[in-house]
Amino acid sequence: MPATACLLVIGNEILSGRTQDANIRFIASGLAEAGIALEEVRVIPDRTRRIVETVTTCRAQFDHVFTTGGIGPTHDDITAACVAEALGVPLEIHEESYRALETYLGREKFNKARQRMAMLPRGARPIPNSVSIAPGFSIANVHVMAGVPAIMQAMFRALIPTLEGGAPLCSVAWHSDLREGTLAEGLEALQNACPSLDLGSYPFDRADGRKGVTLVAKGYDRDAIAEAGEKIRALIESLGAVPVAGEPSP
Amino acid sequence: MPATACLLVIGNEILSGRTQDANIRFIASGLAEAGIALEEVRVIPDRTRRIVETVTTCRAQFDHVFTTGGIGPTHDDITAACVAEALGVPLEIHEESYRALETYLGREKFNKARQRMAMLPRGARPIPNSVSIAPGFSIANVHVMAGVPAIMQAMFRALIPTLEGGAPLCSVAWHSDLREGTLAEGLEALQNACPSLDLGSYPFDRADGRKGVTLVAKGYDRDAIAEAGEKIRALIESLGAVPVAGEPSP
Repeated sequence: MPATACLLVIGNEILSGRTQDANIRFIASGLAEAGIALEEVRVIPDRTRRIVETVTTCRAQFDHVFTTGGIGPTHDDITAACVAEALGVPLEIHEESYRALETYLGREKFNKARQRMAMLPRGARPIPNSVSIAPGFSIANVHVMAGVPAIMQAMFRALIPTLEGGAPLCSVAWHSDLREGTLAEGLEALQNACPSLDLGSYPFDRADGRKGVTLVAKGYDRDAIAEAGEKIRALIESLGAVPVAGEPSP
Repeated sequence: MPATACLLVIGNEILSGRTQDANIRFIASGLAEAGIALEEVRVIPDRTRRIVETVTTCRAQFDHVFTTGGIGPTHDDITAACVAEALGVPLEIHEESYRALETYLGREKFNKARQRMAMLPRGARPIPNSVSIAPGFSIANVHVMAGVPAIMQAMFRALIPTLEGGAPLCSVAWHSDLREGTLAEGLEALQNACPSLDLGSYPFDRADGRKGVTLVAKGYDRDAIAEAGEKIRALIESLGAVPVAGEPSP
């Protein structure tokens, strides 16, 4: 079985509806490719007790906890302090990160607020930030990244090779103009025949007026997925519709 | 204080990265307008134990639990059965919904798979679905909606007037080309002066190359928010930048 993971999206701006999340899908796809199974996402507000408790619960339940958001220089950037508290270690200046930020920003700009970005929980390993230098960090099984998408993506790309992954999650998809209620019986029979696969059915209703269902088979065994794909195609044909191949992944 | 809420997005397709979430922001904005505070979102897979446990935990912790996904006719649509289990009641045919679906679909199309969509936990109140008739439902403090955005939105609009809301969440936003590290000190002073407000700082890096920060004040007291907006504007000006008004809400 692949390692399991939970993603914590920390930030009031998603919960108030002001901001459309732009990170979940990137991280979900990246973990699937790395063979790490994303089992849960939680969006929580930037309040100390909620962050500390959620990190504590989730890191006991999953092999990895990834977080985004709350590591900038402002008063609402409390993720590093909360993770330190959850891990029971002090938050302290990380010398190497401090010097790198000071060099990058220049001494005049490197004010007290920005110095906070060089504070990491004791024992944390910085995650490099090729965009704006202020690092993320890993400590134990918790991996803390920025919320700004470009910075998060740079950190994620630097982080993933340091984690032990597995075979990537594979999937095949077939679209058709059938309805779910027509496909349901055959799909259930297929699921019963292949219990280790995750077979899903996703209705679509496109802007151009086309309606139908996408059937998806997912799993970590590439040959089994290819075989399930053939069976899905045959099921759609047996119901008198034309199967249209969807994007396979990876 | 407003009523609190948690949203459960049920579905493997978000966790695998195949699908971009299209429901969180709509529901978050709608709840903010209705004066219900969205305190957490969880995305979980469509597995029975995970759904039952998460519904049980979250409905004890929040005033309302909203769910999306997993109420169609296929084998992976298990939300209604899981909510029934979490509430300790049987899942049974809801006569009125059964007849409505039979009339809408016609007897021939209304096969065994589609009949599952008329199964509700005993004592549930259907949430009307003006798009495709198969209902959502409310039982106790759990509100179960479809995952297909157009259907979810129709259900949400029907549901919200049945819930007790409060004053809407208000916000003001000011953009500027300042950096967070420059604003941090003044913003913290402002937060300390207005502890009941939620003051947030959101860096942006737009496709056209413009970089800067959006400062947002949020809360349920419209006058206090307007006043905080003026102070944010003054803070930006005092740092030598030009404040640009963001979209207020509602």
